[in-house]
Amino acid sequence: MKTIEWRQESSGCAMILLDQTLLPTQVETLEARRIDQLVDAIQRLVVRGAPALGVVGALGVGLILDQASREAWDRERIEAEIDRLRNARPTAVNLAGGVDRVRPLVPVGLEAVVEVGLMMAQEDEANNREMGKRGADYLLATIADRPLTLLTHCNTGSLATTAWGTALGVVRELHARGKIKEVFADETRPLLQGARLTAWELQADGIGYRVLPDGAAASAILGGLIDAALIGADRIAKNGDSANKIGSLAVALACEAAAIPFLVVAPESSIDRATPNGDGIEIEFRSDEEVTTFAGKRTAPLGAKAYNPAFDVTPAKYITAIVTEKRVYHPEQGESL
Amino acid sequence: MKTIEWRQESSGCAMILLDQTLLPTQVETLEARRIDQLVDAIQRLVVRGAPALGVVGALGVGLILDQASREAWDRERIEAEIDRLRNARPTAVNLAGGVDRVRPLVPVGLEAVVEVGLMMAQEDEANNREMGKRGADYLLATIADRPLTLLTHCNTGSLATTAWGTALGVVRELHARGKIKEVFADETRPLLQGARLTAWELQADGIGYRVLPDGAAASAILGGLIDAALIGADRIAKNGDSANKIGSLAVALACEAAAIPFLVVAPESSIDRATPNGDGIEIEFRSDEEVTTFAGKRTAPLGAKAYNPAFDVTPAKYITAIVTEKRVYHPEQGESL
Repeated sequence: MKTIEWRQESSGCAMILLDQTLLPTQVETLEARRIDQLVDAIQRLVVRGAPALGVVGALGVGLILDQASREAWDRERIEAEIDRLRNARPTAVNLAGGVDRVRPLVPVGLEAVVEVGLMMAQEDEANNREMGKRGADYLLATIADRPLTLLTHCNTGSLATTAWGTALGVVRELHARGKIKEVFADETRPLLQGARLTAWELQADGIGYRVLPDGAAASAILGGLIDAALIGADRIAKNGDSANKIGSLAVALACEAAAIPFLVVAPESSIDRATPNGDGIEIEFRSDEEVTTFAGKRTAPLGAKAYNPAFDVTPAKYITAIVTEKRVYHPEQGESL
Repeated sequence: MKTIEWRQESSGCAMILLDQTLLPTQVETLEARRIDQLVDAIQRLVVRGAPALGVVGALGVGLILDQASREAWDRERIEAEIDRLRNARPTAVNLAGGVDRVRPLVPVGLEAVVEVGLMMAQEDEANNREMGKRGADYLLATIADRPLTLLTHCNTGSLATTAWGTALGVVRELHARGKIKEVFADETRPLLQGARLTAWELQADGIGYRVLPDGAAASAILGGLIDAALIGADRIAKNGDSANKIGSLAVALACEAAAIPFLVVAPESSIDRATPNGDGIEIEFRSDEEVTTFAGKRTAPLGAKAYNPAFDVTPAKYITAIVTEKRVYHPEQGESL
């Protein structure tokens, strides 16, 4: 089952998304034929993950052009809808990046836009495979050439990309080489992408894992159970400061205290060299209800308010290495990107 | 509504516990008349919190003596049941401490045991009031004499003690002095004592608060939103290493990185001077289901295993101060207890 699929029929175009809000208990797809459906799906996290959002941004412009031709939109309306798609979520630079990459092709037409979108999906998988190899080589060389116990946060697998994964791509590559002992998957509150999605992917691949509360990561790390931690990124500033799912920073601090490697694995397209450091990264805040309720049941008293940033920024000084498809950067040592 | 109540009637004795597994949506009590009911209630966290468990340990011996007289137990059976109560949960030293305090009175009889148990409850409240004052004085002197924004983890209020609270007692004292701006309450996965219990207590007292995912604490702390963090303790080793609810360590590391105070507030009875450091503290591991399910709904794939320690140990070097009813210790500066 693919995370994102593009369908082009005589009746019109559609983006078929594996609905990640329903996993792991239900495996269902959502079909978006109109841009408002797609924007809603992005905001509800039916599809998420920076690299996946890059492809969704590009193909989403295709969806807009298709709807525009069906509904005879003028140029102004088309541009407004493209802006709405571009701003559906603010933190991951890839969504805006995907939109911007195909925007110049809008005058050329739907086919040209979709061609680039599909090419981006292919690039994404190739990049992930390359990151996987680089990350695996790095860890085996840095730690030891033996099966490793790794900790990860949120979901950076096939579901967050179009295939293979970024940080989870490194795990898959190591597993293919027989070098994974066990994976500790942070459950990743409030939306449990680790427990729901990463666990689902690891289980499907037959990789041994355990789910843990986010608050237990420091105990596992300082208790000597973990060889290294690795995460993805939604946006990386020029100095290496990296925005990623809320809770990543605490993992980095624990790795720093335990003196074990903390890796960010992300494509070059997640690097935002126009932003000098993390202070310039806009953090999305999400609804109180994500924290104060679960599966329709209240977890906090009626009237409780929440502090619910979707992302945090890990300062470069806590990041041992940033692994991209091109190379390994060492921000902890002051290397800029 | 009291956390723990002792009832002695002609028909026998009973411990009435506010059922903390049902809060905040249901406010119900559980009546324990037999020791197996009480041990089950302790293990299911119907009653929890180190100081509360001290009182439960002492009064629980009373419950055993009452049942023993009804059911004509011999001395051996009584001792075995007392041991079972003492070992119902391993990490909080107070449970064993409460049992041990009244055990020499077993030959004297039920009344003597219960008298000490009820006296411990009174001492607990008086100690908490004293800790509250010391902690409040310390924070206002160390940070600034202005309304503070404080972060706390798990529940250390009336529900974890018999009244007022330890770390939350400091919050209550500061609130009474008009010196609380806002409290950030970590939700405290997996059992959500922060979202369910601390939020409930703060709301009842009209103290402004927000609930946050445990993983968001580091972001709030390094983002400059928090003046200090304060927690309770289940056991404090002689060197100051402190065991507390899982997730406490990550809060301490974030405070260290942000250079803000991290306080442990606990009675002298939580100090275990026979244990030189944290390595000697036994950590309770709890069931996988606490992590992999929520309210009967799966949060992880069928077959998922978990890493679910109930506590972690924060090394003394990350603890700015330990506040007890007697004094303020400074473990970060190498002071032993």
